[in-house]
Amino acid sequence: MTGSLRRRAAAEALGTAALVAVVVGSGMQAATLSPDVGVQLLANSLATVFGLGVLIALFGPVSGAHFNPVVTLAAWFVHRPPLREAGVYVSAQTAGAIAGAVVANAMFAEPLVAWSTHQRDAGNLLVGEVVATAGLVALIFGLLRSGRESLLPVAVAAFIGSAYWFTSSTSFANPAVTVGRAFTDTFAGIAPSSVAPFIAAQLLGGVVGLVVVALVFKSPHPSRAKEPTP
Amino acid sequence: MTGSLRRRAAAEALGTAALVAVVVGSGMQAATLSPDVGVQLLANSLATVFGLGVLIALFGPVSGAHFNPVVTLAAWFVHRPPLREAGVYVSAQTAGAIAGAVVANAMFAEPLVAWSTHQRDAGNLLVGEVVATAGLVALIFGLLRSGRESLLPVAVAAFIGSAYWFTSSTSFANPAVTVGRAFTDTFAGIAPSSVAPFIAAQLLGGVVGLVVVALVFKSPHPSRAKEPTP
Amino acid sequence: MTGSLRRRAAAEALGTAALVAVVVGSGMQAATLSPDVGVQLLANSLATVFGLGVLIALFGPVSGAHFNPVVTLAAWFVHRPPLREAGVYVSAQTAGAIAGAVVANAMFAEPLVAWSTHQRDAGNLLVGEVVATAGLVALIFGLLRSGRESLLPVAVAAFIGSAYWFTSSTSFANPAVTVGRAFTDTFAGIAPSSVAPFIAAQLLGGVVGLVVVALVFKSPHPSRAKEPTP
Amino acid sequence: MTGSLRRRAAAEALGTAALVAVVVGSGMQAATLSPDVGVQLLANSLATVFGLGVLIALFGPVSGAHFNPVVTLAAWFVHRPPLREAGVYVSAQTAGAIAGAVVANAMFAEPLVAWSTHQRDAGNLLVGEVVATAGLVALIFGLLRSGRESLLPVAVAAFIGSAYWFTSSTSFANPAVTVGRAFTDTFAGIAPSSVAPFIAAQLLGGVVGLVVVALVFKSPHPSRAKEPTP
Repeated sequence: MTGSLRRRAAAEALGTAALVAVVVGSGMQAATLSPDVGVQLLANSLATVFGLGVLIALFGPVSGAHFNPVVTLAAWFVHRPPLREAGVYVSAQTAGAIAGAVVANAMFAEPLVAWSTHQRDAGNLLVGEVVATAGLVALIFGLLRSGRESLLPVAVAAFIGSAYWFTSSTSFANPAVTVGRAFTDTFAGIAPSSVAPFIAAQLLGGVVGLVVVALVFKSPHPSRAKEPTP
Repeated sequence: MTGSLRRRAAAEALGTAALVAVVVGSGMQAATLSPDVGVQLLANSLATVFGLGVLIALFGPVSGAHFNPVVTLAAWFVHRPPLREAGVYVSAQTAGAIAGAVVANAMFAEPLVAWSTHQRDAGNLLVGEVVATAGLVALIFGLLRSGRESLLPVAVAAFIGSAYWFTSSTSFANPAVTVGRAFTDTFAGIAPSSVAPFIAAQLLGGVVGLVVVALVFKSPHPSRAKEPTP
Repeated sequence: MTGSLRRRAAAEALGTAALVAVVVGSGMQAATLSPDVGVQLLANSLATVFGLGVLIALFGPVSGAHFNPVVTLAAWFVHRPPLREAGVYVSAQTAGAIAGAVVANAMFAEPLVAWSTHQRDAGNLLVGEVVATAGLVALIFGLLRSGRESLLPVAVAAFIGSAYWFTSSTSFANPAVTVGRAFTDTFAGIAPSSVAPFIAAQLLGGVVGLVVVALVFKSPHPSRAKEPTP
Repeated sequence: MTGSLRRRAAAEALGTAALVAVVVGSGMQAATLSPDVGVQLLANSLATVFGLGVLIALFGPVSGAHFNPVVTLAAWFVHRPPLREAGVYVSAQTAGAIAGAVVANAMFAEPLVAWSTHQRDAGNLLVGEVVATAGLVALIFGLLRSGRESLLPVAVAAFIGSAYWFTSSTSFANPAVTVGRAFTDTFAGIAPSSVAPFIAAQLLGGVVGLVVVALVFKSPHPSRAKEPTP
């Protein structure tokens, strides 16, 4: 592993860990403090908007700040870097996501690992995941294709803040984060049996998102192509 | 239809669909989670601020990101592009708005189409729509006339976030979105019988907004004129 | 009155009217929808943050977007433009503020004018007004003195959003807005008998704010001096 | 003391005072208005996001806007300015923090000084403080090391807004602010007996944060090195 790839993998692992700690931790704090589930999700979603925007801004110049296997796969599809680099990214993201859930559990005096009992099985939740992930991928690769990667931290954070509410699934939209959230039996958890269908819906959403980009955005001029590579 | 106009129409249809899905979907999620209508509107309005800002940023360079027949008509009044282009825009916006309501209904396991039973008939709500649409048009064309179109995504999203609360009608301010919101019998719906008066008030507000721009902002220097064309 | 001053006065009147309509209207909407006064002030303050930021961005290039006699007086103290111009500004702001309250009353089917019965008399509220106005003036003239006027829309809006909560008076910090808010007997109103002490505290706060600027910020290089003139 | 250091110390004292007044004052306001602790922390955290961002933007060009002994110590570790300057900074921050609590108490008609009775003793809260301070230091010095200090006001404010929720301790992350918050027996207070463990955890977090920066971010090119000096 080159020094550069090692730094990039560290950024992906740390960033995904922090993202899951933000999502899981703020869910616990909110569920403890308020009896109103609407207030809980408001706090959870705003904490995620703030945290995710900061993480993309901080780690973007190092690794591209994917924090998400669907984004890494889509970037691989567009640019075909060595497949092994994508593998390193996805591994770092998944390990980081699990570590982030453990840290959140530790901060809130929960068991360090506890399988979630929060079933998320209804078919309409999977429609939500397809829509959420399609929107996320269309946003990222639409902005990249039109040469506006500087907008990514704010735009992606705002999108997720909106998608927490307008999708029925509260927008996981991220296979690594979905795995990580199975490791906590709290507000933001997801039962292990619900993980695979969520990931399948997310992968389908990623394909839909790339189709939208192809339909709406012209191919970039070669000099403006700066899409992230895994 | 030229390739370029086809892309622009796709952007208007997709953007308006996404906007309605955001408004309707977040309304459903909020109404399900909280018993406090104030918390519901807080979630609904913040989800709209985040979602609308992202949509204008993403699609603005493609189509101008009108997503709104009043904006398209005002732009036509200012620039007189071929009337047919304005027609394509308005058709795409209206079809997109209806599709967005259907997608939101699907995500939340509601009937795909259900006429809203939410009467919005009081005269003071129409005053709210005039004020909301006048403010929206004054903002957009004031910023354009003074050469600051880069502020549009944030400024329009923030305006709508404020207008959700300071107008009595929660600021529809958009005929296509008003039509789309008739197709869902949920928090953000509007009864079909209330649609026509709302649209009339919005058109009047658009005229008021253009008058405000003419009173306050000097004519632009020709080199700075970059107002959107439908 | 020159054409230019006429446009500037129109911008001050319209902007202050819109600001009061935002503050008063969102207060009414919030008080109607939620039983929790904390949720009411959250909605009221966020609507004001969004609305005020937009108004400063829109009208700033026209008039400086004071919307506030304390800001106009402080700018007069710093730059000594013709006193008559300051008088035109303050008159436009005050008339606009009253008109804004009337428009908000109309939107929410309240009597067009109703004296507020909301007493705001406690001495600690006046401490709050001194702190709020000192902070506002220090922020505006500190940013101007260090050549960063482009930050004003976001910074002033964010400051007021914070000051709604951290001051005991919810931060009126503006004599014109204080007068306007006496014309509505709703959430955001202030009894006429409380207006004069509030304005006195605001004027004192303005002086404190200018002292802070003089202590902390170096005199600007002449080429960077772009402070607003009334 | 040079004129320049005097201005910088004034900026650190005023900024830290304002920060504590924001945190303590908004906590009192929120606790008075809402019965829902989730709503209280939502208001408290949003007021802090808005206020902290403004303070860093305003005072950053004067003093670096540390407002935090951990940040000052980390900057000293990186740049080795005269130790006496760091001492002046830490003294100004601590005195300012106490003054800010007194001002907040005055605005809300509380006793000017009252020791907090809010015990914050659980071990998992200290884990929260380590995580919060590590994140803060990693963010600040990561952005500085990669030449993006212009992002600091928004990024630091957003981070704290997130950390209020995702850490179990609500993220004090600042020894001076921790001391100041011992001087008020209200929502945001901390019992004097809990102060020393919090500060120890914060210092440990600062070390962890610097280690993260060294692991992920390359050493800056000399021409891009603009890290703040105390």
